[in-house]
Amino acid sequence: MATVLVVGSVALDSVETPFGKADNVLGGSGTFFSAAASLLTPVQLVGVIGSDYPVDRLEPLRARGVDLSGLERAEGSSFRWRGRYRHDLNSAETLETHLGVFSHFSPKIPEPFRAAEYVFLANIDPRLQLDVLGKMTRPKLVACDTMNFWIESRRSDLLALLGRVDIITLNDGEARQLTEEYNLVRAARWILARGPKHVVIKKGEHGAFMFTERSIFFAPAYPLESVFDPTGAGDSFAGGFMGHLARSGDLSEGGLRRAMIYGSALGSFAVEKFSIERLLEVSAADVAARVNEFRRLVAFESELS
Amino acid sequence: MATVLVVGSVALDSVETPFGKADNVLGGSGTFFSAAASLLTPVQLVGVIGSDYPVDRLEPLRARGVDLSGLERAEGSSFRWRGRYRHDLNSAETLETHLGVFSHFSPKIPEPFRAAEYVFLANIDPRLQLDVLGKMTRPKLVACDTMNFWIESRRSDLLALLGRVDIITLNDGEARQLTEEYNLVRAARWILARGPKHVVIKKGEHGAFMFTERSIFFAPAYPLESVFDPTGAGDSFAGGFMGHLARSGDLSEGGLRRAMIYGSALGSFAVEKFSIERLLEVSAADVAARVNEFRRLVAFESELS
Repeated sequence: MATVLVVGSVALDSVETPFGKADNVLGGSGTFFSAAASLLTPVQLVGVIGSDYPVDRLEPLRARGVDLSGLERAEGSSFRWRGRYRHDLNSAETLETHLGVFSHFSPKIPEPFRAAEYVFLANIDPRLQLDVLGKMTRPKLVACDTMNFWIESRRSDLLALLGRVDIITLNDGEARQLTEEYNLVRAARWILARGPKHVVIKKGEHGAFMFTERSIFFAPAYPLESVFDPTGAGDSFAGGFMGHLARSGDLSEGGLRRAMIYGSALGSFAVEKFSIERLLEVSAADVAARVNEFRRLVAFESELS
Repeated sequence: MATVLVVGSVALDSVETPFGKADNVLGGSGTFFSAAASLLTPVQLVGVIGSDYPVDRLEPLRARGVDLSGLERAEGSSFRWRGRYRHDLNSAETLETHLGVFSHFSPKIPEPFRAAEYVFLANIDPRLQLDVLGKMTRPKLVACDTMNFWIESRRSDLLALLGRVDIITLNDGEARQLTEEYNLVRAARWILARGPKHVVIKKGEHGAFMFTERSIFFAPAYPLESVFDPTGAGDSFAGGFMGHLARSGDLSEGGLRRAMIYGSALGSFAVEKFSIERLLEVSAADVAARVNEFRRLVAFESELS
């Protein structure tokens, strides 16, 4: 069982969905990732919070094995995001973004973190992602995420990053924007040609693909009767995915496919409540049970019985 | 190996996609269904064409085991549809519809067809679907499709039909419209409560669900590098689905799941060319090979090796 290091945002979210409202709840890619991955393996979180951040609310994460010693506390206000989802829960409408201390974020990797074997560079400036990579001793597996803003404004850095990661996770819209290919198979091939050996394209409620040079794997989304708040689903997916890889150490094609299912399972829990609430409730046994439900969801051969 | 009877439209389509144009090519739900199902089992087609229909172009279907003796030729013009797809190939824009002889269609089931054990009532007026059912001797399995127009204009007939079919196939938008439930799990439950033991909800390029009282199965769409023309994908799916059931006679949960994969395989071939062109090219061996690719697409257990 190895540790996963994640560098990402630690924010306060205010979210409105057709089912309710939450104000100033824990959010950010680093937070969701940590909450998900820590169900499977120890996590080291690198991020920054402002002087107004309710640090005590991170205590459940620490209790579950998230090392917060890389969480820098800076003078100023924390990263805040306010968004809304309409009936079609697949796309968020951003109402407000206050970057606060996050706008000057320069990740400091504590000495003991530098040996981490599994590294997830969540959605931050590709220059910072590259910078973090330069500080790591010798990671066994590096994955990154990104978003439309960086694809537009930091294209060359992002391309440089692609040459240095094993895996990229991004959503279908981002894959299309990055590659200028509408078709996802072609988009994936474009990205594969630029470095990563695995390209994970997330389609929200429509599941996720993992492309390699020679194979395509599809993991469905878990069909939930009620999706409460989609915020953080992608980062929770990444947490489940990397968490499983670090726990199992199995980087074979089969191992990566199983990691995709763990990602889907954790993503499906994340959306059942606001913030990381549901991720904090579930146990390793709940995760295992949901992974089994994925087996039943796609089984059409003898394994059905 | 049993015969499938299908009642549906036999039309002439004119289609424009980002990749090309086709004028007055074979189309209609009955045509696509027959082209797909006949790769697996004998088919009996019931429909109507106008005096202007190029009947000889149906010859390849007949040669492949589609019994056309239930295809009525009426005085007047054939059903014609003209449509366009933009870059997002998931939704067609209808430019013109001329119902022609289809507007007075009253399905006549030839005496030898009435004993068919497998019946597919493609998307036509629910009153006609009910009428056809009344003429069948004792079908073993009845499935139907429908569309937004009937959901709006023939709701009570459609509900009566639901009480008399084993399976309904419909797309996600139609399921939402029929049930007034946005969530597909809830929508499926609503429909299951009204009769069908299996509800198949098709999501186009995002795959298809099969819901029963006690289980959910998901079949991904095959990730094609180029989707050429999505017209007829849903009817080809239904053809592969029913064709496999009629051929295998296996109506167990496992059999129905495998039928979903055959449906997905036939749907994926249909979109590779205009009209039924690709369905006429492929062989039973091609279908078997693609079904095997579906296995690899979702496998994350030992069966991977």
